Parts: sequence; structure tokens; C-alpha cells
Amino acid sequence: MKFSVNRAVFVENLSNVQRAISSRTTIPVLTGVKILATDNGILLTGSDSTISIEAFIDANNEDNQLQVEKAGSIVLPSRFFGEIVKKLPNEIMHLEVKDNLQTDITAGQAAFTLNGTAGSEYPKLPEIDSDTSFTIPANIFRQVINHTIISVSNQEIRPIFTGIHFVIANNHLKAVSTDSHRLSQRIVPLEVPESLADQEFALNIPGRSLSELTRIAEDSDNIEMMVADKQVLFKTDNIYLYSRLLEGKYPDTDRLLPEDYQTRIQIDAPDLLSAIERALILSHEGRNNVVKLSIDSDQVVLSGQSAEVGEVEEELNISSADGESLAISFNPDYMRQALRTFGAQEIALRFQSPSHQFILLPANAQDNFNFVQLITPIRTPGN
Amino acid sequence: MKFSVNRAVFVENLSNVQRAISSRTTIPVLTGVKILATDNGILLTGSDSTISIEAFIDANNEDNQLQVEKAGSIVLPSRFFGEIVKKLPNEIMHLEVKDNLQTDITAGQAAFTLNGTAGSEYPKLPEIDSDTSFTIPANIFRQVINHTIISVSNQEIRPIFTGIHFVIANNHLKAVSTDSHRLSQRIVPLEVPESLADQEFALNIPGRSLSELTRIAEDSDNIEMMVADKQVLFKTDNIYLYSRLLEGKYPDTDRLLPEDYQTRIQIDAPDLLSAIERALILSHEGRNNVVKLSIDSDQVVLSGQSAEVGEVEEELNISSADGESLAISFNPDYMRQALRTFGAQEIALRFQSPSHQFILLPANAQDNFNFVQLITPIRTPGN
Repeated sequence: MKFSVNRAVFVENLSNVQRAISSRTTIPVLTGVKILATDNGILLTGSDSTISIEAFIDANNEDNQLQVEKAGSIVLPSRFFGEIVKKLPNEIMHLEVKDNLQTDITAGQAAFTLNGTAGSEYPKLPEIDSDTSFTIPANIFRQVINHTIISVSNQEIRPIFTGIHFVIANNHLKAVSTDSHRLSQRIVPLEVPESLADQEFALNIPGRSLSELTRIAEDSDNIEMMVADKQVLFKTDNIYLYSRLLEGKYPDTDRLLPEDYQTRIQIDAPDLLSAIERALILSHEGRNNVVKLSIDSDQVVLSGQSAEVGEVEEELNISSADGESLAISFNPDYMRQALRTFGAQEIALRFQSPSHQFILLPANAQDNFNFVQLITPIRTPGN
Repeated sequence: MKFSVNRAVFVENLSNVQRAISSRTTIPVLTGVKILATDNGILLTGSDSTISIEAFIDANNEDNQLQVEKAGSIVLPSRFFGEIVKKLPNEIMHLEVKDNLQTDITAGQAAFTLNGTAGSEYPKLPEIDSDTSFTIPANIFRQVINHTIISVSNQEIRPIFTGIHFVIANNHLKAVSTDSHRLSQRIVPLEVPESLADQEFALNIPGRSLSELTRIAEDSDNIEMMVADKQVLFKTDNIYLYSRLLEGKYPDTDRLLPEDYQTRIQIDAPDLLSAIERALILSHEGRNNVVKLSIDSDQVVLSGQSAEVGEVEEELNISSADGESLAISFNPDYMRQALRTFGAQEIALRFQSPSHQFILLPANAQDNFNFVQLITPIRTPGN
């Protein structure tokens, strides 16, 4: 194998596939990045066996300055190889596999030789040949992921909760996540191909795969999602992200979202967020990490305390407060993450009682549960 | 105690005194920041008993928007208090000590109450009343520190090496540091008051004190240094930094700096730095972290290797190479830090033999040892 390529282009694509590579893998060859050169271009592959990412550098795209002199493949140690190509001088870098899999990487007067592994030792990626394919604008899909990833569990005890549950039906995409303390839901319109329009598709995608996808797809216009039996493939421009699906049936979460409420306040999300961020300076010191919201018709007060350090109290600038008086305690970190998903908009908080889960949603939401964050309160001796 | 003050001014001064405060102190009251309010202004104090920093917010400076309603003092938990004032809303913040040392911190609608400690429980800072005082332009002093701090030892076994050795004599300031593997020296002119002109002053200042000083003095014009028996005080604008001095006699380092050389190369410091930074990607993997410089009259090559990963070789773009051929091995991390002190200038490297320490200095240096970095080579089986 022998080629030369624009170094900045190579570095960018390498960084993308490295997102899939974990140094903690038990399969040694997966600590490497696979480089496959053909007359058409170079294909880079990284994988941790849950996620695999491929990036293609096209020989026909002049910007890539790619000259493949000899086809072939090699696996190089990901971390060193990455550090090396980032530190090389010059616009153009050269890579050549010599005898015994020794690989020369040169640019300007700098010459590295790395010990490679045969490309044939790299595991084959699953082939996804499926007619079940959907195209989603990348900015919408990134939003859906960012609004729901906060409630994904990082506990492996119930693996299904480490993913986001997607349902595609009736020309809509619904995404739900929960770690059993809170829940996020986002529903967006989706143009479904006519051949699939009557069907419903449900799949559970690992949170980590989706958060890598949001980073890779930052500059893309569209994401194509191809669904197979146990795998999903996301295509964006020149990058493919393969992810294993989580097996099992996702619990019915619709029944958790309360339609009724006894108390409702309306407030600018950033105002409440600032107050929460002040309150958690103290609550993080307390044994329970709890803050309290006390709602009356004429004032709403956020408070928190830590026996060792002190206490905090702040009257909130609300737009409106309706319904019954209520004092409710909750984890301010959950509230902070939930509030951040709303950005700068005005939101409504709807409560049933101090012991029932409560929800946050855009103040002007008509179709209520298209964008909702649910939080379970904490029972404290005080309320 | 009761006052109101411009929050940004207060935050900036608090951040400066917090540099002295360590959460690992064994004296509980030193985890706090002391606030002393008088009619003249507010004095903030932080200390870890080696370093103490005081910052004064002047009531007569209108920019400070300081109104002291009631004099007094209090000690507040440094970390919480700092997080709180940073997160407060509003331009103006209020602070008031109530009954039982409870301290109210309010701004806008946010109200914090912190449990304070009586100001009288805070240790007294050493009083430095000394006629031995020198004034140094802050940018020069920062440079002197930055050029020598790299060779300060972080091993407490020989405490004297954890400081920079300063000698003031003949209207010059000399700074030397060594960790016994390398040495840095910087000599600059210094205007000494006439009454002190005939004397020589030698003092060993902890490296940590000086690195905090460089951060605090970033916007200052001058630094005044007052020397007492076991303490030194640095004054800059409204900030005082007190440091304990290291006791003991600093070894004579002049004899370590070789006047002679057998081999000399001249090169742009940034070019050599880039090559070193590439080579250490591999050397950091090897057991010895060594790179080799091979000097011939017609070419100079930097090389390194790691048995597991591979090797690197680079011909350097030198300006000149004189004297005998030589191959010498050294720790590339020492070389990297030494090269960074020179910035973008052309430097000379002067060698005696593969087993003698070698030096780096500006290529145009006449008075050779005003700015010098010395590195001890590593003996390897290969040379």
C-alpha cells in the first residue's frame, strides 16, 4: 500500500473514526485504525464492536489531494498514529507499507516507521443491506438526540435504559429515554418513504452511539438511517456509523406522562437555570443534593441548604403561577440538565402534588408531549 | 460588618487571594478567606502558611463601588464563597455579618447565608518591615521566573531545589534553578537603591510562590520586592504576596556551566521544538524516554524509537554545524521545556562530549550565561 494525501483532510477523517476506538477493548486489533487503499480512495475504519465508524477519502475529490500508488490495507496503532499525523509538518503526507508490515509515514523531513498489523486481521463490519431507510435533516436529528440523551442511564444493570428508544410511525419520529428517575421525550415530523408509510418501527439505540453521531454529523445536512435486524447504520456525507441495537422491549412510557395538573408556573428557562445553578453550589454539599421550590399565587421561591455550609433562598421572576400552593423538592442536577434542553424559551412547569413526578414543556406547547422533560421529586421530611 | 461592592471587582480580587488557599491544609481556618472591612476599604486574605496573598479594595476608588456601612471581619469557606459570588446576578453584591457569625450574601433576589468563622481566629501574617527593597519591571521579572521555573525540582527530598535561587549584586539580578538533571540561569540588570548598592543579597524563593506571582502580576507595571530574614514580600498595585524563604545554602552552580565546547550547532528554536515534539510521541512509549541527536558537518538528525511501536527520524534544518561529529542522547521533555523559554529566536547548542552536560543559549549571546539552559545527557548502549 502506498499513497499521499492532504494531511488536514486525513487528520479530520481519522479523528472521526477514532471516536469509535476504545483503548480498553479486549480485542487488541481494535486498538488500531484500519486503512484500506483502493484506486477509488482510502477507507478508514475504527470500532469497539458496539460502534464502528468508517470514513471515506475520495480520490476523485481534488481537495483531498489523494494519490493512491499501490492498493492494500494495514492496521496502525490508533493513538500514536493519530498523534503523529497531527504533529507532522507539511500539507501533504505520505504513507507506505514496506516489508514485515513496517509502515513509513513521512512529511517534509520527518520520517516515522510504525509496526503495523495485517489488514486481514481486522474484523469484518456487519453488512447492512436493508430497504428500511429514513432520511432526517441532521440539525433536527441532533436536536432530538440532545434533548433526550440527558435521561439515558449509565447503569449497565438494565441495559435497555442505556439507549434512546426510537419509534417511527405515522410520519413521525418519537424518541424517549429514561433512567427511572426522569424521562425525556421528543416527537418530530419525519418524511417516511411511501413503501414504509404503513409500518411502525421501534428500535433502541445505545446512547453512546448517538452522542458520537451528533459530533460526527456537525457539518452535515442530512443523516440517512438504515435499520436492519440487530444493527443500525447512519450515513452522513462520507462517514458511516454502524451501531449495535439494544435488545429487549422498551417499557411503555406514555402512561408516565401526566395530562392533569394542580399547579402550573410559567418562567423563562434561563432565569430558572441561573437560580438552580446558584442553589446547587450548596445542595451539592448536603447529604441529599435537594432543592425546594415553594409556589404561592404571589411568589415562587427556590431554596436549598447544607447543614455545614449555609443556605440559599431566591424569589424567582415568574411570568405566572396558577392553581394550588405547593412545595416540592427535587435533584437540582436533573433540573439543570432538563432546563438546558429548552434554550432561551419560556417554559411551563406542571405539578400534581409534592410526591408525583412533574413535567417541563414549552410554555406555548399545544400538542403537549412533543417536547417534554419529566422529573421525579424527592420526598423530604419537610414536605 | 456590612458592605456593598462591585461584584466583578470583588470576584477578581477574591480569585487572586484564593491562589494561596489550599484545600489540603491541616489548619482548618486556612481553608477560608478572611474579609476585613474598614472605612478605607476591604482587605481579602488567603494563605497556606507558605504563601499568603492579600488584596485591597479601596473605598476611595469609585470603580470599586464600595460602601462600607459597618467595619468588622469574618472568615468564609473559600471554595463555596467563591462559587457563590461568581454565580450571583447583578452588578452590586451585599455582604453582612449577622448574629452567630451567620453571613448574608445578597445580590438581586438571590440571598445566601453562610456559616462564618470569627476573623480573630485567622492567623496573623508576618509583618515585614524592611529597608531591603527592590523594584523590578513586572514583565522582566515574569520573564526571569518563566525562564528558570522549568528546572525547579518538585521533589521535597532536597527542599532547597524546590525554589529559585536569587542573587542581587552589582546592579544585577541572577536567578538559577536546578533539579540536578538540568539547570536554568537568567541574569538581568537591576536598579538597586544607592544605600544597598555595595551589598550582595542571596535568597531562595519557593517555585510555587513565584509561579503564583507571575499570574497575579499579569497586568502590573512594577513589582516591589521586600526582603526580610525568613520572608519575602512582593507588592504589585493592590496585591501583596508574602512567601516563606527556603532555608539552607544553595550550591555553587557557576562551575557547572561549561565555557568550552567541541561541537556547536545553530538552529531556529521553533524548528527544533517541532521536531522534538514529534520525536517524543514515540520516546514516551519507550522504557527510557530518550531521543538522539546525531551531528555531522553536513547534516544533523534527530531520532527516537520505541521497540513496541516503531521509530522516528528527522533531518533538521540547521543554520550551521561546527566542530566535531557527535551523537548525544537526552530526555526530550527537558529539551522541550528549555526550547520553549527561547520563544522564536535563533539559538546555539554547545556540546563537549556525549557524556557531558550541554547548553542552549541565544545564538547572538555575547555575555554567554545571561540566558542559558543546561541539560545532562543520558548514556545509552548505542553511544
